Amino acid sequence: MKKLFAEFFGTYWLVFGGCGSAIFAAAYPELGIGFAGVALAFGLTVLTMAYAVGHISGGHFNPAVSFGLWAGGRFSAKELIPYIIAQCIGAIAAAGTLYTIASGKAGFVIDNTKAGAFASNGYGAFSPDGYSLQSAFIAEFVLTLFFLLIILGATDKFANTSFCGIVIGLGLTLIHLISIPITNTSVNPARSLSQAIFAGGEPLSQVWLFLVAPILGAIAAGFIYKTLLQKTEEA
Amino acid sequence: MKKLFAEFFGTYWLVFGGCGSAIFAAAYPELGIGFAGVALAFGLTVLTMAYAVGHISGGHFNPAVSFGLWAGGRFSAKELIPYIIAQCIGAIAAAGTLYTIASGKAGFVIDNTKAGAFASNGYGAFSPDGYSLQSAFIAEFVLTLFFLLIILGATDKFANTSFCGIVIGLGLTLIHLISIPITNTSVNPARSLSQAIFAGGEPLSQVWLFLVAPILGAIAAGFIYKTLLQKTEEA
Amino acid sequence: MKKLFAEFFGTYWLVFGGCGSAIFAAAYPELGIGFAGVALAFGLTVLTMAYAVGHISGGHFNPAVSFGLWAGGRFSAKELIPYIIAQCIGAIAAAGTLYTIASGKAGFVIDNTKAGAFASNGYGAFSPDGYSLQSAFIAEFVLTLFFLLIILGATDKFANTSFCGIVIGLGLTLIHLISIPITNTSVNPARSLSQAIFAGGEPLSQVWLFLVAPILGAIAAGFIYKTLLQKTEEA
Amino acid sequence: MKKLFAEFFGTYWLVFGGCGSAIFAAAYPELGIGFAGVALAFGLTVLTMAYAVGHISGGHFNPAVSFGLWAGGRFSAKELIPYIIAQCIGAIAAAGTLYTIASGKAGFVIDNTKAGAFASNGYGAFSPDGYSLQSAFIAEFVLTLFFLLIILGATDKFANTSFCGIVIGLGLTLIHLISIPITNTSVNPARSLSQAIFAGGEPLSQVWLFLVAPILGAIAAGFIYKTLLQKTEEA
Repeated sequence: MKKLFAEFFGTYWLVFGGCGSAIFAAAYPELGIGFAGVALAFGLTVLTMAYAVGHISGGHFNPAVSFGLWAGGRFSAKELIPYIIAQCIGAIAAAGTLYTIASGKAGFVIDNTKAGAFASNGYGAFSPDGYSLQSAFIAEFVLTLFFLLIILGATDKFANTSFCGIVIGLGLTLIHLISIPITNTSVNPARSLSQAIFAGGEPLSQVWLFLVAPILGAIAAGFIYKTLLQKTEEA
Repeated sequence: MKKLFAEFFGTYWLVFGGCGSAIFAAAYPELGIGFAGVALAFGLTVLTMAYAVGHISGGHFNPAVSFGLWAGGRFSAKELIPYIIAQCIGAIAAAGTLYTIASGKAGFVIDNTKAGAFASNGYGAFSPDGYSLQSAFIAEFVLTLFFLLIILGATDKFANTSFCGIVIGLGLTLIHLISIPITNTSVNPARSLSQAIFAGGEPLSQVWLFLVAPILGAIAAGFIYKTLLQKTEEA
Repeated sequence: MKKLFAEFFGTYWLVFGGCGSAIFAAAYPELGIGFAGVALAFGLTVLTMAYAVGHISGGHFNPAVSFGLWAGGRFSAKELIPYIIAQCIGAIAAAGTLYTIASGKAGFVIDNTKAGAFASNGYGAFSPDGYSLQSAFIAEFVLTLFFLLIILGATDKFANTSFCGIVIGLGLTLIHLISIPITNTSVNPARSLSQAIFAGGEPLSQVWLFLVAPILGAIAAGFIYKTLLQKTEEA
Repeated sequence: MKKLFAEFFGTYWLVFGGCGSAIFAAAYPELGIGFAGVALAFGLTVLTMAYAVGHISGGHFNPAVSFGLWAGGRFSAKELIPYIIAQCIGAIAAAGTLYTIASGKAGFVIDNTKAGAFASNGYGAFSPDGYSLQSAFIAEFVLTLFFLLIILGATDKFANTSFCGIVIGLGLTLIHLISIPITNTSVNPARSLSQAIFAGGEPLSQVWLFLVAPILGAIAAGFIYKTLLQKTEEA
C-alpha cells in the first residue's frame, strides 16, 4: 500500500509541477520561464520524487515507465494495474488542484480551441507548432523509447545506479527541451489524461495518441534493451 | 552554538542569493535572468549551503522546514525556537545588506504599492499575476507540503541520502519555477518576513499568509510522511 | 557487438536530442529555448546515455572522443574504426528521423543558403554570427581539446570517477554556451556529418573543418594530458 | 609542477568559458544566452575542471580561493605565489585566445568607454546597471566571503566531500546570477586582471577593486569558518 501512496504522490507532483509551471509561469510577460523552464520543472519533479520515494515504490510516476520496466523484465505484471491506477488518480488530483488555483485569477478560462489548453497534448491544429499526427506519433514513440532505454540502463546492475534519479529526471527535461513545440510533450499517459479531462473537446479526442505511442515506445525499449544492450554476467 | 551560526549563515545566503537575484538581475533589459534564473538562484543557495554547513546544523535555513522535521519526528522541539531565531536574524541581516547595495544605484526606491516590492510575497493585488488569497494559500500550502515530503524522503534512512542536498536544493528551484507568478514564492517564513519588514505597507500586512500556510503545509507533510509513506524496518 | 549498439544508440540520441532541440524548439516565438536550451539539451544527451550505456561501451558517442582517448592511451587502436562507424550510422539515422518529423510541419524546407540550416555547422557566411574560418578552426580546436582534457581527467584512476557522466555532459553544455554563435558548435565529427548530409550545398562543403579541427584538438589533448597533467602512481 | 599546469589549464578554461560565453553568446539577438547562460557557463568551467584536475592541484583556479584556503588553514603559504602566477598566466592566455577569435568577426572592437567591455568588471559608470563603488565593494566582498564558506564547508573532513566540485561550481553560477548587473561579477582577481589588460582605459583603472575586495572577503571567510563554524573532532 505504501508503494501506491508513493506513486500517487509522485505522479501528483509530476503533474502539479510540470503542468503547473506551464500554466502559471511559462508565458508571464518578459520574465516568464518559457519552454526551457517548463522542461526543467518536469525533470525536477521526477528527480526530486525519485530520491524522496524511489526507495518505496521504485519511482515510476508514469504508466509508460511501468509498462517498459515490465517489458524489460524488471517489474511484475501483477503490480502493473494497481500502479497505473495510483498514477492516474494522482495525476487527476493534481490537475484538479491546478484548476482550483488557476481559477483564482480573474478571467481564467480553458480555451480548448487552441493548442496546449490547460497544458494538454495535441497534434495537427493542436500541436503548439503545427506538426502532423504522424510527426507527433513518431516523436512520442522515439522519445519514450529513449526515456526507457535511459531508465533501464541507469538502473542496470552493472551501472552506477546511485545517480539514476538525477539521470532519469534530467532525461525528462531533455525530452521536453526537444518536443514541447511538437506535441506539448507527453511520454506519460497519466499526465496527458489528467489535462485532457479538464480541457475536454478536441484535446480529449486526441488523447488516444498520448496513451498509445508512449506505451508502444516503452515496450519497444524493453525488448531492445534486453536483446541488444544488456550485459550478461561478467566473468 | 555552531549549529546556530550555520543556520544564520545559511539563511543569510538563501535571502541574499534568492531575493538578491530577483532584485538585481531578474528584470535587467534584454539579458536579465527572469523567473527561471531566480528559481535557480533560490535552489542553489540551499544546495550550496546544504553541503557546506549541513553537516553542522542539518541545513534547515527555513522555519517551515524546522517545523516539518519536528512533525516528522526528526527534530527535537527544544531546538525549534533557537533555530527559528537564528534563521530570522540571518534573513533580516541579508535583507539589510541587499538594501544597502541596492541603495547604491541612482533612483532606487522600494515602491510598496506594487507586487513584489523588494522581493516581498503577496496575494490579490500584490500577487505578481493577480491570484486570489485562496489560490495563494493553497499554492503555498501544497508547495511547502511537497517540499517537506521531498526533504523527509530524501533524508530517510532507507534513501540514497548522499544526494539530499542536490535534491532539496533543486526541489526549491522547482517550487519557484511553478509559483513566482502566484505569490512571488515563499514556502519560507523567514524569507518572507525579511523582505516584508523592508517593504512595509501592504506587503507587510499580507505577510501572515506566508507564515501560516508554509508552516501548516510543513506540519501536514510530517504527518503524511510518517503515516502513509515511511517504511518500517526491512527484514 | 553490444558496445557498437551502445555507441549507435548513444550517438543517435546525441544528434536527435541536441540537433532536434535546435531544429524544433530554439526559435519558437516568445517561449523558445534559445541557445542556452540547446546547450543544455546537447549536454543532457551525453549525461543520460553515459549513465545508461557507459558501462557497456565507455560512452564515447563522438569520433573525436574515441581519437582523443586513443591518443591518451585509454582506448585501443583496433576498436577505433568500428566505434566511428557505429557513431556515424547512429548520427545519420537520427538526422533522418529528425528530417521525417520536421517534414510534418507545413512549409518545412531546409534553406542551405543560410547559417545553421538543419543544425549544420559552418564558418564565414555560414557562421551564425559571421566568424571567420580561422576563428572557427581555433574555437573548435580549443574546445575539443578541453572537452578531452575534461574526459581524460574525470575518468582518471586518481579522480572521483563516479561523477564523470555528469561532468562530461555538463562540459558539452558549457562548450555550446560559448560557441554556438561561432560555428553552431561541433566538437563532434559524427554530429556535423549527419547534418551536413541532409543540408547539402555550402554546409556540406564546409564540413571538412568540423572533421579536422575536433580530431586534431582531441589528439592534442591526449598528448597534453599524458605529458603535463597525468599523475603517476602515488606512494 | 603538474599542480601548476593544472592551475594554468583550469584558470584558462574558467576565463575562456566564462568570459567567452559573455563575449560571444550573451547578447546574440533573440537566441542569446543572457546573464543566466553566462552564470551557468562560469559555474560549469569550475565544475568540470574540479573533477578533471582537482585531484592534481586541488582546483583553485582563482587567487582569492588560494588566499581563502590559506586563511582557513588548508593551503600552505609557500605554494601561494606559484599558484597565483600559474592562475594569472592561464587567465591572460585565455583572454588572448578570446581576443584572437573575437577579431575574426567583421567590425570587432573593444569599446572601453562602456561597462563590461571585453567582459571586464567595473563600478559606477562601468557597472552594467550603474551601482556605486561602495555597492560594488560590498557585493564582491560578501560574495567572495560566501564562495569561500561554501568551499571550506564542502571540503571539510566532516562533509560529504565527493560532491564538492558540483557544489563549488554551482556556487559560482549562483554568485553570477546575483551580481552580473552590479559589477559584471568578479570574485576572482585573475579573471578580472585578464580582461582589464585587454580592455585598458577605465576598466583597467578600476581593476584594483576586483583584486582587493575578493581577497579580503576570502580571508575573512577563512577566519569565520575556523572560528564560528568548523567542527572539532567528534567523539
